[in-house]
Amino acid sequence: MSTSKKAAVLGASGYTGVEVIRLIQNHPKIEVAALTGHSRAGERAGDVFANISHLNLPDLQDWNDVDWSNIDVAFACLPHGASQETIAQILPKVETVIDLSADFRLRDPELYAATYGRPHNFTSLLDEAVYGLSEWAIEDLKGAELVACPGCFPTCSLLPLLPLLEKDLIDAKSLPISAITGVTGAGRKATLGLSFTELAEGAQAYGVGAHRHAPEIDQIIKRISGQDSCVTMTPHLVPLNRGMITTTVVTLRAGKTVADLRNAMLARYTNSSFISVLDEGEVPQTRHVRGSNRCHMNVFDNRTPNTAIVVAVIDNLTKGSSGQALQNYNLSQGWDETLGLTGLALFP
Amino acid sequence: MSTSKKAAVLGASGYTGVEVIRLIQNHPKIEVAALTGHSRAGERAGDVFANISHLNLPDLQDWNDVDWSNIDVAFACLPHGASQETIAQILPKVETVIDLSADFRLRDPELYAATYGRPHNFTSLLDEAVYGLSEWAIEDLKGAELVACPGCFPTCSLLPLLPLLEKDLIDAKSLPISAITGVTGAGRKATLGLSFTELAEGAQAYGVGAHRHAPEIDQIIKRISGQDSCVTMTPHLVPLNRGMITTTVVTLRAGKTVADLRNAMLARYTNSSFISVLDEGEVPQTRHVRGSNRCHMNVFDNRTPNTAIVVAVIDNLTKGSSGQALQNYNLSQGWDETLGLTGLALFP
Amino acid sequence: MSTSKKAAVLGASGYTGVEVIRLIQNHPKIEVAALTGHSRAGERAGDVFANISHLNLPDLQDWNDVDWSNIDVAFACLPHGASQETIAQILPKVETVIDLSADFRLRDPELYAATYGRPHNFTSLLDEAVYGLSEWAIEDLKGAELVACPGCFPTCSLLPLLPLLEKDLIDAKSLPISAITGVTGAGRKATLGLSFTELAEGAQAYGVGAHRHAPEIDQIIKRISGQDSCVTMTPHLVPLNRGMITTTVVTLRAGKTVADLRNAMLARYTNSSFISVLDEGEVPQTRHVRGSNRCHMNVFDNRTPNTAIVVAVIDNLTKGSSGQALQNYNLSQGWDETLGLTGLALFP
Amino acid sequence: MSTSKKAAVLGASGYTGVEVIRLIQNHPKIEVAALTGHSRAGERAGDVFANISHLNLPDLQDWNDVDWSNIDVAFACLPHGASQETIAQILPKVETVIDLSADFRLRDPELYAATYGRPHNFTSLLDEAVYGLSEWAIEDLKGAELVACPGCFPTCSLLPLLPLLEKDLIDAKSLPISAITGVTGAGRKATLGLSFTELAEGAQAYGVGAHRHAPEIDQIIKRISGQDSCVTMTPHLVPLNRGMITTTVVTLRAGKTVADLRNAMLARYTNSSFISVLDEGEVPQTRHVRGSNRCHMNVFDNRTPNTAIVVAVIDNLTKGSSGQALQNYNLSQGWDETLGLTGLALFP
Repeated sequence: MSTSKKAAVLGASGYTGVEVIRLIQNHPKIEVAALTGHSRAGERAGDVFANISHLNLPDLQDWNDVDWSNIDVAFACLPHGASQETIAQILPKVETVIDLSADFRLRDPELYAATYGRPHNFTSLLDEAVYGLSEWAIEDLKGAELVACPGCFPTCSLLPLLPLLEKDLIDAKSLPISAITGVTGAGRKATLGLSFTELAEGAQAYGVGAHRHAPEIDQIIKRISGQDSCVTMTPHLVPLNRGMITTTVVTLRAGKTVADLRNAMLARYTNSSFISVLDEGEVPQTRHVRGSNRCHMNVFDNRTPNTAIVVAVIDNLTKGSSGQALQNYNLSQGWDETLGLTGLALFP
Repeated sequence: MSTSKKAAVLGASGYTGVEVIRLIQNHPKIEVAALTGHSRAGERAGDVFANISHLNLPDLQDWNDVDWSNIDVAFACLPHGASQETIAQILPKVETVIDLSADFRLRDPELYAATYGRPHNFTSLLDEAVYGLSEWAIEDLKGAELVACPGCFPTCSLLPLLPLLEKDLIDAKSLPISAITGVTGAGRKATLGLSFTELAEGAQAYGVGAHRHAPEIDQIIKRISGQDSCVTMTPHLVPLNRGMITTTVVTLRAGKTVADLRNAMLARYTNSSFISVLDEGEVPQTRHVRGSNRCHMNVFDNRTPNTAIVVAVIDNLTKGSSGQALQNYNLSQGWDETLGLTGLALFP
Repeated sequence: MSTSKKAAVLGASGYTGVEVIRLIQNHPKIEVAALTGHSRAGERAGDVFANISHLNLPDLQDWNDVDWSNIDVAFACLPHGASQETIAQILPKVETVIDLSADFRLRDPELYAATYGRPHNFTSLLDEAVYGLSEWAIEDLKGAELVACPGCFPTCSLLPLLPLLEKDLIDAKSLPISAITGVTGAGRKATLGLSFTELAEGAQAYGVGAHRHAPEIDQIIKRISGQDSCVTMTPHLVPLNRGMITTTVVTLRAGKTVADLRNAMLARYTNSSFISVLDEGEVPQTRHVRGSNRCHMNVFDNRTPNTAIVVAVIDNLTKGSSGQALQNYNLSQGWDETLGLTGLALFP
Repeated sequence: MSTSKKAAVLGASGYTGVEVIRLIQNHPKIEVAALTGHSRAGERAGDVFANISHLNLPDLQDWNDVDWSNIDVAFACLPHGASQETIAQILPKVETVIDLSADFRLRDPELYAATYGRPHNFTSLLDEAVYGLSEWAIEDLKGAELVACPGCFPTCSLLPLLPLLEKDLIDAKSLPISAITGVTGAGRKATLGLSFTELAEGAQAYGVGAHRHAPEIDQIIKRISGQDSCVTMTPHLVPLNRGMITTTVVTLRAGKTVADLRNAMLARYTNSSFISVLDEGEVPQTRHVRGSNRCHMNVFDNRTPNTAIVVAVIDNLTKGSSGQALQNYNLSQGWDETLGLTGLALFP
């Protein structure tokens, strides 16, 4: 008798959806039992994504048509707004909802409204939701029924910074984060700005000065370190599919050194399954985590006095989204957090 | 009778060399009279770069074999170190030397030695050399005999920052510059780290904390604004050939606003041939200056109090190197600075 | 008094439109006097293409609003179907129309209807139109009032094959052409299939077995060589913006050799401004013609008996479209065919 | 007690080597027990490939230093020439050698010498070697001690063509194969021609008329169909890391149709673990097999009479090399051929 958990992937026609499917295929305790897709209901999964056409998967359907009595866990890969509406209805019917959208990340509904330009309609659920930055929420995730998976930029920014802020080694007031992301982070959309020709052989900043992930970063810094921050987050879009870098110039507390920062990172993540603090001087590269759930990080001396440079890389679709979602589900079930996530980065 | 200036391109087998050749082809007053190439002497230009194989160009030769009596101007596209040795010998023989290397950028020989790991052997020439950040050296360049063309990162960093520093609108003490560059900036080399497979589908920082162009930026900030700085310069290498972004979080002087910064940029460059301050809110993209000598810049509000974000883009090979070199020669001759440089960016 | 020809660019919001604008900027005898754009009428040119934002260009307008009395030549960069409708109305009002669409390429209206899935409504104009494969139509183009510019695949296929077919060196019955093209050939569209993520890091064939450009190739082979053909044309889409290769396995006529083929190519193009027959054994690369109006070609021995391999490369947007359009206009006016087209390929 | 087979990866510093390592990590019955690397002996695996730095792997060593008594199987990821020399010495010491090089592919030593420009020094082993085009060698592979894994182009060419040739549906005399490959196929080398800037934003043919994989294709066609062939194989290099297409114009035997071809493909591969014959009209794309051991294929009507077009795609490093190597080892051991190879293609 199969004891697998039955998973529904909501929004299976998008990139985070198919990434969840890809990872579940190598997971020994989960099977895909339902796929939903707003605009593509009725289509075969293989017609939506040709890389999974040989699998025996359910067709896409409208989420209203899913037999929820057959589902244990829903991975919600929906746009914000749509996500909360859907989750509010299915949460009573399933054991666990792992939300990959932004809808339950910010605890303050007013901040949510200001950030996402729409009110939050399910504020009571905000209290229930566990913010799933996995390595910093292991206890909270146990038995969690609703998990809000962090944004990709918060994940890549916070993982290297939190150990330093937790130990008060750096100043939370000055955190200029510069980030680079691949194009998959923008989702699967037919828009001119995302067309190959408009993005190849060039680079650009976007969301300058007001990226939606910045308040989320501040919220977690406050929670972990008690410090107020107002980070600068400047993402740049470059011509690659997957990959994210954050580079932050941090200001050292008096008497602290780069070695102190490095040691804090090492100490915090020494038993981590997915995080590598690289050898001294070694620069993280996104290609070395491509398709994996890993985060590579390091900290460097900087010529500007009393500062250091913190660099981290992830795959925005994996550790930055669908991989961390699966890791969170593993943790919610009390399983080994690496189930389904042991695939090595695809390099070259 | 031709009144064209006869140009020698030293280091014509490299990317900045062929870019000089490309630009000169559209220049009405210069013709290529000699090409030199360390390791490829004796080869036809078209065998070194197939995109110029149909041109009637001189073969590559050793620079010792050039008949300098026939040369008016030398564009030195050589590695640092080699450049100063060569220039010291040919400077007496030609009217003008435009140096694209780092050898005459830093005025302080000790700083040069510390930065480039070798002593400067021609310190007397350091005083003669004009630092050719074109828009900030127009008067100095008139009649100049030796021009030190700025590095690509200093060009892209300083062009947007100098108008703000000159008017004391921002604090020179805190200048965290994050940069992105295409691969051509690394030169034409057979090294594993520059191979396609090691660079495609990924991104990485490099030279973290101690990039060689940082002291050059400080030197010019001091010269223009009188302020001491110690900038952070973190370059990132991404999979594109040409293009550079600098993104700097600037701290506003008390009472100053982003509008003040924007107005200073606009005022400074209102008559500039090559610099566009974009419309409010419009983000510069490297692809829109690809292959051109232009710089697009803008300044943005930032959520972090008392700060703003300055973004600029150039083509690292053109405005960042060979194009600015030609602009500097134009200015040295009292010509219209746009001669040979009117080609539009190749987009798409 | 300006004696420049006044040009209207119809469809200036597309890639072939902006490429015409780019090339005209370096043309000494043409100036842009009107820009039209179906969906973007009223917008500034620089808002449609940021790489031309610094130019003093007319705003985009509806083509019905153009003052045609002020226009000498129209470059029609419109979709097929729309192109013929527009041209039929403006042809009486201007001296010359250069059509970059497919509407006047096929002389047989039934073939047009079968190929493009719509009837041809202006068959009388079909007789007037000169098929502008420039190097093969120099006489016909003189004084031409309506020029049908060839498709990109026909241009890249026919230029190397016609000299061989004209001299009856190869068999027109067996012409398996395999082609590679960059993404710009698909135009500027907001469609999922053209999005960066769907096209990066991959390659695919398309239009397999029935590409629309195949009948056009047959038509010209018949015209030049008298032979009937039914070519195979299999294009492949790869992740680059500009560039096209055609690779054809040709069957030699009895007693003919690769040297004969090579000599025929050389003889035919010895005085050509834009075509290079490369040195023996040298393989054409698209990057070496990027942004230029050039075609590089070569022919190679093949291990399969009695065959040879013909390879040619162009930039699909330049020689494959807008560049050849300008070349055709130059020839129509009796000017040097290279006016506006002397820019070197942008490599690297 | 572990019953895993102990594997040595010879040539672990190359791309096919690290791909073997990547795949073995997900294999339930193999563990990596030794890694060798000519020039990088003594280095940690993670210093050679940062994507595996978190694994507990042996350091690289010279193959002479390996304790072969501890090794069950060697995956030889070495250059041709070096491979046969090494294999001759270790074959007596281990149960199985899976050779990824070209050294044991051609059965005729004279053909080997003519093709690879060096004599074959271990001709007695040629008879022992099983040519491991997995789907066509299942019986031969059982218990095989030396397996010669096919080249990537032969794999991608033969898989779709053999079912058609086996049933005599097409003419072996006319097989113009046009191929596209990603850059990883060239190996990990510090050469200018493989540098990013020389390969990005462009495409080119190579090995035109005389590619080394062509005789290998002929050999297998003869073996399977009894027909003599002399295929044309024209590879093209395009800017992507992984991926391969072959497109072949096939000539139908009298009375045969595309439907016959399609049915033959379907029949032959109906139980195949890794091969998908796509739905009618669906075009294979390399990105949909990226990182997987799958082959997608299809056959299309062609406008040229009595012909059809056959298209197939693989990942050149996986099914084209290391993946097929592992599949072959699975088959040699009598295991499920999919062990270690169930990972889905990484799309996007």
